[in-house]
Amino acid sequence: MTETTENNASYEPPSPQQHIIFLLRKYKLVEGLVNLQDLQDKSHTVSSVQKQNLAELQNYLNQLHPADIAHILEALPLEDRLLIWSLVKAEHDGEVLLETSDAVRATLITDMGNHELVAATEYLDTDEIADLAPDLPQNVIADVFRSLPVEEREQLRAAMSYPEDSVGALMDFDVITIREDVRLEVVLRYLRRLEELPDHTDQLFVVDRNEQFKGVLLINRLLVSDPEMLVADVMTAEIIKLHPGDVAQQAANAFERYDLVSASVVDDTDKLLGRVTVNTVIDFIRDKAENEALNLAGLSEEEDIFAPVLKSVKNRWGWLAINLVTAFIASRVIGLFEDSIEKLVALAALMPIVAGIGGNSGNQTITMIVRALALEQITTGSAWKLLTKEVGVSLVNGLMWGTIIGAFTFAIYQNAELGLIMTMAMVLNLLLAAILGVLIPLTLRKLGRDPALGSSVMITAVTDSGGFFIFLGLATIFLL
Amino acid sequence: MTETTENNASYEPPSPQQHIIFLLRKYKLVEGLVNLQDLQDKSHTVSSVQKQNLAELQNYLNQLHPADIAHILEALPLEDRLLIWSLVKAEHDGEVLLETSDAVRATLITDMGNHELVAATEYLDTDEIADLAPDLPQNVIADVFRSLPVEEREQLRAAMSYPEDSVGALMDFDVITIREDVRLEVVLRYLRRLEELPDHTDQLFVVDRNEQFKGVLLINRLLVSDPEMLVADVMTAEIIKLHPGDVAQQAANAFERYDLVSASVVDDTDKLLGRVTVNTVIDFIRDKAENEALNLAGLSEEEDIFAPVLKSVKNRWGWLAINLVTAFIASRVIGLFEDSIEKLVALAALMPIVAGIGGNSGNQTITMIVRALALEQITTGSAWKLLTKEVGVSLVNGLMWGTIIGAFTFAIYQNAELGLIMTMAMVLNLLLAAILGVLIPLTLRKLGRDPALGSSVMITAVTDSGGFFIFLGLATIFLL
Repeated sequence: MTETTENNASYEPPSPQQHIIFLLRKYKLVEGLVNLQDLQDKSHTVSSVQKQNLAELQNYLNQLHPADIAHILEALPLEDRLLIWSLVKAEHDGEVLLETSDAVRATLITDMGNHELVAATEYLDTDEIADLAPDLPQNVIADVFRSLPVEEREQLRAAMSYPEDSVGALMDFDVITIREDVRLEVVLRYLRRLEELPDHTDQLFVVDRNEQFKGVLLINRLLVSDPEMLVADVMTAEIIKLHPGDVAQQAANAFERYDLVSASVVDDTDKLLGRVTVNTVIDFIRDKAENEALNLAGLSEEEDIFAPVLKSVKNRWGWLAINLVTAFIASRVIGLFEDSIEKLVALAALMPIVAGIGGNSGNQTITMIVRALALEQITTGSAWKLLTKEVGVSLVNGLMWGTIIGAFTFAIYQNAELGLIMTMAMVLNLLLAAILGVLIPLTLRKLGRDPALGSSVMITAVTDSGGFFIFLGLATIFLL
Repeated sequence: MTETTENNASYEPPSPQQHIIFLLRKYKLVEGLVNLQDLQDKSHTVSSVQKQNLAELQNYLNQLHPADIAHILEALPLEDRLLIWSLVKAEHDGEVLLETSDAVRATLITDMGNHELVAATEYLDTDEIADLAPDLPQNVIADVFRSLPVEEREQLRAAMSYPEDSVGALMDFDVITIREDVRLEVVLRYLRRLEELPDHTDQLFVVDRNEQFKGVLLINRLLVSDPEMLVADVMTAEIIKLHPGDVAQQAANAFERYDLVSASVVDDTDKLLGRVTVNTVIDFIRDKAENEALNLAGLSEEEDIFAPVLKSVKNRWGWLAINLVTAFIASRVIGLFEDSIEKLVALAALMPIVAGIGGNSGNQTITMIVRALALEQITTGSAWKLLTKEVGVSLVNGLMWGTIIGAFTFAIYQNAELGLIMTMAMVLNLLLAAILGVLIPLTLRKLGRDPALGSSVMITAVTDSGGFFIFLGLATIFLL
């Protein structure tokens, strides 16, 4: 990215990745040569070249940012990935593991010994170890616990105890605390005695002798204020105080809304527990968006793109099974009307149109509603307004598209009644789609379920079976 | 959020919103009373109560964060929204407009006079005015230009010139620059003379006399270093230097990967132009994820949930039209086989299963590939590996689900050959879905198009028409 790209349309892959692949190819080509040569004589000329190649690869690799190493590993097929992984220095192992996706992390951890895994955690903070913990073997976690000092052991235990989507899971313990009755000059001298400040330190946390949280001293205020002033006179109240049991999404909303860099986490008695920083929140937002996209497409979780076939099958079979059930139901609905279809075979050709457009329209409604629910834009009073609006939209759409389809039907089959049935079926199925497109997510929410999950499958099932039933039913009553 | 919620499953709407709605209801109820009373006598008792109600509403509203006001406006039907909007103080107008979604912003701007709009921009930075500019009437923009000092006028012109998805569009001009040949103590004294530092100032930018960018002085390093040291000895190279023409997504990737709070933007000659901050990046990531979700569902853009019916119809008709075309094509494919269906009507009931599962499976593949492309995980060498993997997955899925469906078909229709045809059609349609699921996004990318856009519609069109053709074709050849 340091090289500006003239052509915005194409993203060039970042050059570290290309360079690693180049070095890897060079190494592997010569490796082939070495193997050939080994068969002929035992000369060590080539294998010394090879040692040099490997050293070059390793040197280049280990001066990269751990996030870049992780990115390169994600993009490599398993064999190459493990070769590169074996070249990463032990002190980077932990950071790299943190940056990889769950699926790729599993392939890397499987390749490491218990001893290596424990060593990798030595360079991590306790909240980071907690993030890795679900992927580590049980005895590795036990060893890690044993290797920690008492205070950190308690932190790790706490961090591991919070559920995945809670503020506690996003929290770290890198807080600098100060007292309110000291002068800013003392604070500045205190900071100068530290070797470095934790990343994302945009504020210091003011606590009293009982660790009760009193407020924050913004670094930006510290820098512009007279050093003779007291902390108490410069400190501000935190915009938001998070609690470890809060839903992580609420923290993300707060960071987005108030443009925060860090926020305090306190317990019920206002004791300061830790903080959440913006980089963790970005990762959370990304992961959440990703997971929603994957779920919508019927994938249970993110997939290592080079995963073995059977692993991928396992990741995908769940949604296919559910869709198969709904497809069967739709098929049996059609089965009810086999006599009608036998009499007028055009029905078979036309019915998927009614079902298909109904599904599309229903998914539009449901996406609107799910989004408005996530943004907390729907209040009890407005639900009714929304329903009437969606019904209105579907009536307009139904009449408009229904008329076009009816006209086409008449043009193809020269059957005016059939055209009229198409129009009617279209209007009714779009109405069904609109009503259930509003009711399904609102009901899921009322039941305490995530309205984003499964709404789309449900509405498609309804508009498929419903569309076939409405169209074939109308045709049976009025045409045959 | 300051009140911890015991029950994580249900998000409570934040209390400011509930309180505003409560005050609004109170006001409107009494408003009804006033109108009644006005008919009877001209006593002013009730309307003085009413003035008090309005004042209470206004006071409460104007002590809220602009982002919270924006959020409340989004959730109100048009009439209430405009009532509340009229109570927001002019100095908050600009900030609130920045925080609302495009659709809701339009409803608010329509309600404002030109004079009010120009006044609203007075409290904004130039980069923020540029964000609003596309929604403002032409003559308002001209007035705003006239009201600005020369330097800011140039900044605004520059900011408005960058395309929407470029780094330039995310950039602001709030940089504090320092020279490298001064001592840290001087820097600290210089900062103390400022009233406040710009938000998200985690680093100062070191430039020479020609505004050439030399590096950054991290605030965290400034605080822990000996004040006698020179800036040159403490400053660091920027991890990443952005250019205004870079794709915004690249900046977002860099922020996510390197956990940045701010990053410098330079021109081709390394002159410092401005910076990008993490809050802008979060908004970009959210908007992007949102837009992808909306596009997937067939909505052209975000919709004000209280938009009038015809406006919503306009937002949705595009994708419905495209889907109608693909549905028509599928319908004509079925039409080719009307003779076969007439002979064996079970075909009509079974064909949607083949098409449906093919569509689901194809969408799984395409989501995988689009995601891997976005994360730059696919290199030229690995495309072939991906194709063979997806074909493998589809063969396993096809044989597994195909056998189940074949068995069901046999159970229902007592026709073994029909069951076998179902299994074969299933395997072939899933193969088609896998191959095109890989090829469609890779081809769109090769052509310089966004692979996320339209891939899903295309694969569904292929698996629908393809599924009907394969199944009915096989049946016609082998059964009839």
